[in-house]
Amino acid sequence: MDAQLTHSLRADAEDNRERVLEAARELFSDRGLDVPMREIARTAGVGPATLYRRFPTKQALIDAAFTDELIACRGIVDDGCADPDPWRGLKSVLRRIGELNAHNQGFTAAFITAFPDAIDFSRHRTGMLRSLAELCGRAQKSGGLRADFVPDDLVLILMAARGIAAPTLNARLAAARRFSALAIDALRASGDRETLPPPARVAAPLVA
Amino acid sequence: MDAQLTHSLRADAEDNRERVLEAARELFSDRGLDVPMREIARTAGVGPATLYRRFPTKQALIDAAFTDELIACRGIVDDGCADPDPWRGLKSVLRRIGELNAHNQGFTAAFITAFPDAIDFSRHRTGMLRSLAELCGRAQKSGGLRADFVPDDLVLILMAARGIAAPTLNARLAAARRFSALAIDALRASGDRETLPPPARVAAPLVA
Repeated sequence: MDAQLTHSLRADAEDNRERVLEAARELFSDRGLDVPMREIARTAGVGPATLYRRFPTKQALIDAAFTDELIACRGIVDDGCADPDPWRGLKSVLRRIGELNAHNQGFTAAFITAFPDAIDFSRHRTGMLRSLAELCGRAQKSGGLRADFVPDDLVLILMAARGIAAPTLNARLAAARRFSALAIDALRASGDRETLPPPARVAAPLVA
Repeated sequence: MDAQLTHSLRADAEDNRERVLEAARELFSDRGLDVPMREIARTAGVGPATLYRRFPTKQALIDAAFTDELIACRGIVDDGCADPDPWRGLKSVLRRIGELNAHNQGFTAAFITAFPDAIDFSRHRTGMLRSLAELCGRAQKSGGLRADFVPDDLVLILMAARGIAAPTLNARLAAARRFSALAIDALRASGDRETLPPPARVAAPLVA
């Protein structure tokens, strides 16, 4: 094969992998980890043979989907920490993690319920929270983040954001964006206000 | 019986009722609706006979516990709406509903899962949301609540608040108070800042 063809085949394979993982995360999110492999292949638009060549077992697929999500999350945090303006970096972390979670809602919870002792996950979480705490400290020093903020507040807000449920991906994204903008205004030191993204309708909460 | 004694017996009975309902909500919240009646009596510090005289069936107890919660919630909303300062009224609603939910976390969800068609609940919710929307409108006109707020934002925030989990009641209350204060700062029109209650540690969220 010439180099051009090899390259193109590699790109196709990479595309297939992404499509399978995206379909898997979506189906796992909506319906739990029991979705049949056959259905994941169908949703991804690949043949079962292609799916099994890439991911010989369901477990391999689940692990890859979760690992990809961890990598995406770590990437968001690293990007935020690398921003020369730490408050801008922190705001982008809040926005982007909100969107990531809206995409994958349900999958993370299902994974952690099924595999509570996944060691990589807890190490990932600890490392991520440490980086975020450091970013928050710099954002406070820069005057962007309110002085009475503590890193536990970020944990609180991220946990709260995960409580927002909506039936469709678009509704979840809209809700996540609106909530992140409000959270940013809760955390800023000054009286400035975010330009809020469009309102989002979620089901009425289970308020008693 | 003289009037004094009758009064005192009534007060005792009322105390018992409250203690039973409080114990029931706490146990239902922590462990679901399957907790044995016997254990509820023990936790409340009353004899089984007293419990069964008041609540002949588990269902009667569950209904009473839930109804009490609805009444408490409605009372919080009515108090807020009656405040001559609508923004102060709205802030008190946010704080007090947060605390109420911290107390009853799990019970509402368990109840709604078990009895999804409880008609009173949906009527209650609709009425409450209507009152809150009206209060929010007045709070905006008064200049306290930000102009770009929409009532759906309140639904979003209340739903998010319910996503905050912590293993003990005290931790849940601390987290609810801190979150409500941050939410109030997210919603206010001005750059003023709440004096935040003490930080709250919750378990690291299921962020992937």
